[in-house]
Amino acid sequence: MTPALSVPAVGAPFERTMIERRDLGGHDVMIEIHFCGICHSDLHQVNDEWGGALFPMVPGHEIAGVVTAVGDSVRSVAVGDRVGVGCLVDSCGECRHCLAGEEQHCLAPAVPTYNGVGYDGEPTYGGYSRHIVVRDRFVVHIPAAIELADAAPLLCAGITTFAPLRRWQVGEGTRLLVVGLGGLGHLAVKIACAMGAEVSVLSRTLAKRADSVRFGASRCLASDDSDALGQLAGHFDLILNTVSGGTDIDQLLGLLAVDGTLVTLGAPPQPLQVSPFALIVGRRSLAGSVIGGIAATQQMLDFCAEHGILPETEVISAADVGEAYARVARGEVRYRSVIDLATIADQAALAAPAAEGLAVLDG
Amino acid sequence: MTPALSVPAVGAPFERTMIERRDLGGHDVMIEIHFCGICHSDLHQVNDEWGGALFPMVPGHEIAGVVTAVGDSVRSVAVGDRVGVGCLVDSCGECRHCLAGEEQHCLAPAVPTYNGVGYDGEPTYGGYSRHIVVRDRFVVHIPAAIELADAAPLLCAGITTFAPLRRWQVGEGTRLLVVGLGGLGHLAVKIACAMGAEVSVLSRTLAKRADSVRFGASRCLASDDSDALGQLAGHFDLILNTVSGGTDIDQLLGLLAVDGTLVTLGAPPQPLQVSPFALIVGRRSLAGSVIGGIAATQQMLDFCAEHGILPETEVISAADVGEAYARVARGEVRYRSVIDLATIADQAALAAPAAEGLAVLDG
Repeated sequence: MTPALSVPAVGAPFERTMIERRDLGGHDVMIEIHFCGICHSDLHQVNDEWGGALFPMVPGHEIAGVVTAVGDSVRSVAVGDRVGVGCLVDSCGECRHCLAGEEQHCLAPAVPTYNGVGYDGEPTYGGYSRHIVVRDRFVVHIPAAIELADAAPLLCAGITTFAPLRRWQVGEGTRLLVVGLGGLGHLAVKIACAMGAEVSVLSRTLAKRADSVRFGASRCLASDDSDALGQLAGHFDLILNTVSGGTDIDQLLGLLAVDGTLVTLGAPPQPLQVSPFALIVGRRSLAGSVIGGIAATQQMLDFCAEHGILPETEVISAADVGEAYARVARGEVRYRSVIDLATIADQAALAAPAAEGLAVLDG
Repeated sequence: MTPALSVPAVGAPFERTMIERRDLGGHDVMIEIHFCGICHSDLHQVNDEWGGALFPMVPGHEIAGVVTAVGDSVRSVAVGDRVGVGCLVDSCGECRHCLAGEEQHCLAPAVPTYNGVGYDGEPTYGGYSRHIVVRDRFVVHIPAAIELADAAPLLCAGITTFAPLRRWQVGEGTRLLVVGLGGLGHLAVKIACAMGAEVSVLSRTLAKRADSVRFGASRCLASDDSDALGQLAGHFDLILNTVSGGTDIDQLLGLLAVDGTLVTLGAPPQPLQVSPFALIVGRRSLAGSVIGGIAATQQMLDFCAEHGILPETEVISAADVGEAYARVARGEVRYRSVIDLATIADQAALAAPAAEGLAVLDG
């Protein structure tokens, strides 16, 4: 048993509960979670905006911690290693996508870290919890240069932006527009700048202009500044849209050069509206991208360590998750809330039934 | 003066009129038009469905004929040559897209063959006419293996399908789905088969199954056959959507493999509805493509000649254009109506005021 923050039903507030993690199998790794980021998709899922949500739900797929035990067959990590877990905890390992290191496209399909069902038929519970047991293939190493609290947001927001930047070959001189400067957006700016891109930011207002510049962007635009946007018609090679809804897709497509691509990373439940002309004129593309493979996640962490890229985080205690969700929904977080899971263990330990189980796990 | 089929106002029927073509400049080519195809976009334009239509309008951008005169500086064609003109009649020639041979993306922008305004400020009139004067750069050679009536549809429908097949690197074994078996679709099937693709056709019904097979497709699917479509989820590398409206984009995206692309070629005035998930899951793209450059148009003609690819045409007389439009709108044409412009010259010559001008031109 390990303490967790759990949502019992759609829209209900978080509760501190005790959950079971499976017994350690030969290829399993037990991790004491130190920090877990709050991703915008966590809000979508606890509110069942994507359908099919499973309750009780323990969100969290930006997990950073330390290995406390490993199964007999584990060779890739050892007790005491600083490790991370992202959005996936299992995949078939045999399909062409798994073999290509793109587990996110596993045909089985892959098992999400939470709000999913494992191949053993058991529901998966995420990182808003003190411990987790994860198959070794899905555990990545956190480089020494990155603190655990900083590593957490990289496990989803980092790979979600790094992967499309690589897929669409961002490099020296690429003209990139990042739409939305939140958890994803601010990492997209930092990573793309390190890749050599000329990065612009499109935000609702200019309130984050100074931050944009600090992160490396050369230009910050407000989405209602039609003059400035008009001057940039046809300018960008690539646009990463990190905003979850309400964007004018045709307006963004109009900012793309010939053969340019608008990649949507957010997943609002509402359909996007696209004018065929906005695609046809300029042979433009509207694409989607979702997280990335495990090998790419490790590459991303190593890239961030090498280039000194860190997310901007606000560390909160477990008791403040409900408030943090409200702030995420209002777009107030600068730029990622990260839960300090040590605070959940303290509080849960006050509850007598849980104390014994915890003592065993923490030993 | 030369006879033409002209629409005086939005939605009005065709009239036989006399129009002026400009005096032959140094780089101009005068062509006696033998045949001109009826493209679905002609219907969109005479009905002003895309906005900004200019009347009177003489449609037609699938032009095949014979050179009757050339300007002093013309070297690329000579009197008597069998030539074609597609959707463009001019471009700046200096921007990066023109220099790359992609005049359709000219930044000036390019001048459409009709329903446009030339760089001289004069409206452009298309190929439903006996003669046209076109700048030499926009005149392509029709290979000897292709009859003029067969060449006409290639100048728009051919290049509109050939260009995206090349852009998205269709080759041996590519799994291609062609949506809609009309003027564009039937050429897409023939060209893609010659490129080595495994081609399937998605149509409203199975009425065109035998034709699909005759054109080279290995599979014909009805769009309401959800069982068959379900079995093909994730199957295709590329989908060319040649249908002008009413397609379920999310359904099509679901048929794409990881990294697959759905290319929309039609341009309905209504926006497309796209679920972000349909793009994100499988990192799929929705793209557009519009015609192709002049060099690619010549390559397409040569490719068709080499591989024996010909459109299926119905040759009609100038007097029957109104009826042909109604048949195009109802999807009844198998597979392209082509106007025999000799029939317009005969009829127009009966009108006394026009006879003199014609005699000069035909001399």
